[in-house]
Amino acid sequence: MIASITRLNGDGDMDVAMIDDQMLPISELDRPYLDRGLYFGDGVYEVLRSYDGRLFALDEHLTRFERSLREIQIFNVDIETIRQKVLSGFSAGGYPNAKIYFHITRGSESRDHLPGSGIIPNFLMTVSELKDRPETKEKGIAVSTHPDWRWKRCDIKSLNLLPNVLARIEAHKSGASEAILVGDDGMITEGAGSAFFAVDGKENAVITHPLGPEILPSITRAMVIRICKNAGLAVIEKALTPAQASACDELFMAVTTKDIVPITQFDGVRIGSGQCGERTRRLISEFTVILKEVNKS
Amino acid sequence: MIASITRLNGDGDMDVAMIDDQMLPISELDRPYLDRGLYFGDGVYEVLRSYDGRLFALDEHLTRFERSLREIQIFNVDIETIRQKVLSGFSAGGYPNAKIYFHITRGSESRDHLPGSGIIPNFLMTVSELKDRPETKEKGIAVSTHPDWRWKRCDIKSLNLLPNVLARIEAHKSGASEAILVGDDGMITEGAGSAFFAVDGKENAVITHPLGPEILPSITRAMVIRICKNAGLAVIEKALTPAQASACDELFMAVTTKDIVPITQFDGVRIGSGQCGERTRRLISEFTVILKEVNKS
Repeated sequence: MIASITRLNGDGDMDVAMIDDQMLPISELDRPYLDRGLYFGDGVYEVLRSYDGRLFALDEHLTRFERSLREIQIFNVDIETIRQKVLSGFSAGGYPNAKIYFHITRGSESRDHLPGSGIIPNFLMTVSELKDRPETKEKGIAVSTHPDWRWKRCDIKSLNLLPNVLARIEAHKSGASEAILVGDDGMITEGAGSAFFAVDGKENAVITHPLGPEILPSITRAMVIRICKNAGLAVIEKALTPAQASACDELFMAVTTKDIVPITQFDGVRIGSGQCGERTRRLISEFTVILKEVNKS
Repeated sequence: MIASITRLNGDGDMDVAMIDDQMLPISELDRPYLDRGLYFGDGVYEVLRSYDGRLFALDEHLTRFERSLREIQIFNVDIETIRQKVLSGFSAGGYPNAKIYFHITRGSESRDHLPGSGIIPNFLMTVSELKDRPETKEKGIAVSTHPDWRWKRCDIKSLNLLPNVLARIEAHKSGASEAILVGDDGMITEGAGSAFFAVDGKENAVITHPLGPEILPSITRAMVIRICKNAGLAVIEKALTPAQASACDELFMAVTTKDIVPITQFDGVRIGSGQCGERTRRLISEFTVILKEVNKS
């Protein structure tokens, strides 16, 4: 059933819109239906979390967000205002362990690839409770590999995430909870929603893809690199093939909402003992030390 | 100023959201604020037009739309229902020369890369008047080249259009009205919002990029190839470098809303006489013949 609209004989204002089955004059379309975030994914986002009532790495997230905005040429956003919004949202949520998602899109207007000059950005944030799963830190997760179909600026945390979604759908079908992306050159870049790490036991080293346009400059990745030193592990920044990765002693991923998570199955191959490896466990432990330090400061 | 919300002590329902400066319980977020189209660009779209009161190539657009939906694994959409919506919107708009945009996203729910199994797709359509500019068909347009940052499945007409937007912003800065995208291999793929063609006068041939994941299977492109025969021109499907393109006798682009548009300036270089070339003019003329045929049938 399609509802009809009453025509207003307006001044060139005969444009119509339809939302699901409802027809209406285009002038009555609400702001979110004209969001460039919806039409083009023309926006950038961040996800951060708190531990025990303290926001973690807020400055780092805001710095990265500011860079993402700049890279897509959204210049009229005051980052201190965003900080205040995050703090208010966190406070209003009242969760000791909160997950905070926020994004900014270029704004709302009639659809045109080229944005209007006076357009005002849209801000959206959600604050929800994070339920940590300690058992995952022991058992680990299964991952599967998928072609990396993403764009060439994965260093920008943009709303263009369809390739990540498609990879996650495929991973889920194969019983995996994360997709590990593999470029045309056969090398692993990162996870669809996480950074990817391998441990070479003989070298006592952690291996991860170097920074560049192929991967997100993950804040948890930077944290892992920092704590490797404390854990007596070298860091080698290089790309691995899936075969090289699955032959490694330990694998893990890093993501804001769950920090370090062991990977114990890789494309159906058991990694190490099938439980969290010794060095990954050490890193998880060192991460809690960092957390305490950060929360004290 | 950030508005505060009154906390309802609900059953785990303490999640909050913020839209611009307004804080609210997350349960009060309207459907468009939970659209996966907004968070992930998780949807596909079409743009079609009418000429003199008749929709052009509706079947072709619906067929491509159905394929795009399938490729991103949205299976629960009845394409005949979409056809009826397009027809109703076109009729309600009442424009002889209408531009019809529509998209479907996977649906609205709490943000998670992996979609919920029961999610219901969202449909959005706008119908507006198209004002053709006959002078452009004579004078042509200026284009500039930009790196092709798009994902690896450009054959899917998805809502992940940020690279297209960024290229158009850059093109606009250099005084060009379309961006021509160039891959890492140095070869032109297509325009940010159009198909790209070159004319080799000596060979009496039109050159365009072959179909594949690097370009959209443009319906106007297919139409151009069809009318080349009528215009006595051969079609060569191969990629060109920017240097090869700017050395060609004529260049033009093809896009649903404007059909064939001569390109008379390419990265600042004048093409041919700086006006619409002889063969491009013949194609424009043959296109109107096709239009009459289609509109008669």
